[in-house]
Amino acid sequence: MYTAKARAVDGPKKSFQATEIQRRDLDTHDVLIEIHFAGICHSDIHTAHGEWGEVNYPLVPGHEIAGMVTEIGPEVSKYKVGDRVGVGCMVDSCGECDNCERGEEQYCQKGMVPTYAGVDKYGEPTQGGYSSHIVVVEDFVLGIPDGIELDAAAPLLCAGITTFSPLNHWNAGPGKKVAVVGMGGLGHMAVQIAHAMGAEVTVLSQSLKKKEDGMALGADEYYATSDPETFKKLAGKFDLIINTVSAKINLDDYLGLIALNGTLVNVGAPAEPLPVSVMNLIGHRRSFAGSLIGGIQETQEMLDFCAKHDIAPMIEVISADRIDEAYDRVLASDVKYRFVIDVSTM
Amino acid sequence: MYTAKARAVDGPKKSFQATEIQRRDLDTHDVLIEIHFAGICHSDIHTAHGEWGEVNYPLVPGHEIAGMVTEIGPEVSKYKVGDRVGVGCMVDSCGECDNCERGEEQYCQKGMVPTYAGVDKYGEPTQGGYSSHIVVVEDFVLGIPDGIELDAAAPLLCAGITTFSPLNHWNAGPGKKVAVVGMGGLGHMAVQIAHAMGAEVTVLSQSLKKKEDGMALGADEYYATSDPETFKKLAGKFDLIINTVSAKINLDDYLGLIALNGTLVNVGAPAEPLPVSVMNLIGHRRSFAGSLIGGIQETQEMLDFCAKHDIAPMIEVISADRIDEAYDRVLASDVKYRFVIDVSTM
Repeated sequence: MYTAKARAVDGPKKSFQATEIQRRDLDTHDVLIEIHFAGICHSDIHTAHGEWGEVNYPLVPGHEIAGMVTEIGPEVSKYKVGDRVGVGCMVDSCGECDNCERGEEQYCQKGMVPTYAGVDKYGEPTQGGYSSHIVVVEDFVLGIPDGIELDAAAPLLCAGITTFSPLNHWNAGPGKKVAVVGMGGLGHMAVQIAHAMGAEVTVLSQSLKKKEDGMALGADEYYATSDPETFKKLAGKFDLIINTVSAKINLDDYLGLIALNGTLVNVGAPAEPLPVSVMNLIGHRRSFAGSLIGGIQETQEMLDFCAKHDIAPMIEVISADRIDEAYDRVLASDVKYRFVIDVSTM
Repeated sequence: MYTAKARAVDGPKKSFQATEIQRRDLDTHDVLIEIHFAGICHSDIHTAHGEWGEVNYPLVPGHEIAGMVTEIGPEVSKYKVGDRVGVGCMVDSCGECDNCERGEEQYCQKGMVPTYAGVDKYGEPTQGGYSSHIVVVEDFVLGIPDGIELDAAAPLLCAGITTFSPLNHWNAGPGKKVAVVGMGGLGHMAVQIAHAMGAEVTVLSQSLKKKEDGMALGADEYYATSDPETFKKLAGKFDLIINTVSAKINLDDYLGLIALNGTLVNVGAPAEPLPVSVMNLIGHRRSFAGSLIGGIQETQEMLDFCAKHDIAPMIEVISADRIDEAYDRVLASDVKYRFVIDVSTM
C-alpha cells in the first residue's frame, strides 16, 4: 500500500481537509503516478455536494489528472518510469462487452469504474486526483505529448475529451457550422477544438462578457442568448450544437437554431427532464442527443490533436488550500476557464 | 377550370357532404389526374377536426392519392395521358432553397405547399384527394410502378414514405435491429419496409392483438408495451426505433431500449412537449429525432422499392359515403390497416 497525501470532504456541506489515503500495491499491469496537477471540474462539485446521488465520504474528487510515472507493475508495457501521463474520468471497465471491445469504454455495458466515487474491481472505493499519487491500470492511463505542459494537460482529460468526442462523432469540420452553448471550462475547449477541426464556430453565451476570449480562441461569431434577437437571427443555421450548459435551458429555442439534419448534443445533464416539442424535430429532421466523455483511444487522439494544433485550456493554477474558494468561484462562474490544483502544495 | 366531385366538411364537428370543387386550368407543367383511390390518413382527421390549427372550411382532405393522367399541360415531359400516377402530402415547393435543391422538398425553407389545407402559388386554397380530379405540377406527381394496384398504391404516398424515409436515412439494413412502435397504418408499413431492407424487426404494440399480422408482414419479434417486462427484456437492444404513435408516450421508457449510438425517430408529433431525461441520452450516446414524409425523388424510390419487394398496405376499400364511419373507426383503432376510398363511388 502507498500512503498518498490528499484533500477530502467528509460530507456534502463540508470544506476540504488535508488527509492521507491508501493506494493499492501495484498489480501486474498497474502504474503508480505521482500527480503534479489536478483540474477542478464542475462534476467534482456536484459529487462532493452529494447532488448526484449518495456518496461514501470521505471523498477525494478529481478526474483531470496529470503527472509522471514513478513505478510500474511487472507486466506493464505501455509506460515506463518518468513518462508524462494523464488519467481522466474512468480508471477501468469490463473490457469484454461490445462497447469496450470497440473502444467505447465510457459506455461499458457493465458500467465503467469512475475515477472517484466508484468501486474498483477489488471492491474498494475509488478516490480521485486531489492527491499526491494514484494507481491505475495501464490501459486507462494516457500519454501526454511533449508539446503540452502538465498543468494545461489536466483539464483536457475531462473538459477536452467531453467536447472533442461529440465534435469528432458528429463530424465537425470544414463546411460545418458549429455552435457552442456556454463559454466555460467545456465551452472554451469546444471552441478551440471545433475551430482546429475546420468548422465555422459560433459561441452562444448568456452575455457578451467573454466575447474577446471566445474570438481569440477561434470563434467566428459570438452571440448573447439573453438577447431574443439571437434566436431569430440564427434560426436554422447550425449543423451541430454542443450544449455545455448543465442547467435547464429552453430546449426548443436552441432546437430552432438547427439546420436540416442537424443535431444538438448535450454533454451535461440537468437534473430535471427537458420538454421537447417533437414538431421542432420533425420539421427539419433534427436530432437531440447526448454524449459522455470519450473512449481511451479517442482520448489519446484528442491529446495528440491538441498538441498538434497548440490547443490548451486557459487555466488558473491554485494551491491545495484554495479548493473551497475555487468551488465557490466556479459556482459563481468566476473562473477563466479552469482551476488547476498544484498538487506539490498538498 | 375543371369541376370535380368531392367530399368536404364544413366545420370541425361536421360530417362529410358531397359537393363540387373547381380545379385550376392546366398551367404549362400541370397534370390533370382522375383520382381512382384516396387513402384516409390520421392527419386528415386531425385537420378536418381543426385540431392542428385553423382551417378554411369547406375542406377536402386526402393526401394519399392514386389515379390516372387524363390531360397534360403543353410543356409536361414526365407524364403522358393514361399514366398511372400518385400524389402525396405536398403539391409544390419553392424549388430554389438549399433543401429543395437537394431533393428534400418536404423541408422547403419557404414551406412546401400541402396537398390540402394549404395555399398554392396562385393564392388559392389547396383541396385534397377525396375528389374525382386534381391538378398538380408534374414535379410533384409520382409514377406508380406496374406491380402495384392503384388502391394499394394510395397509402404508400403518405404511410409508405413517412416510414421509408427515416428507415432509409438512418440506414436500416442487415445487422441492424429496428423496432416499430405502433401497429397501425404507418407501423404495418414500417414493418414490411424494414424487413425488406434486411433489418431485424421488432414490433412494440400496446397489446398482442395484431401479433399474427405483424409476424406475417415480416416482424421477427412482437412485444406488448402494456407489459412492463418488455422494457426490461429489450433494454439497450435497438439501433433504430421508429415511433409511429402520435399520442404522448413515456419517452424515457423507449429511449432505454436504444443501443449505443442508436436513434428513436418520431414520425408523428404529440400536441404536448415530451419530457426527455438527458442522462438517458448521454449514457449511451442516444439520439431522439423527428422525420417528415420524404422528398419527391425518395418517394419515387419508395414506390419502386415496394414494387420490387412486393410490399403493399393491408387495406379496406370503402365507398365515399362511409368516410364519417371510417373516421370513427380509425379513432377507435378499428382498421386493418388503412381505409381507402373508392373515388368512383363519389
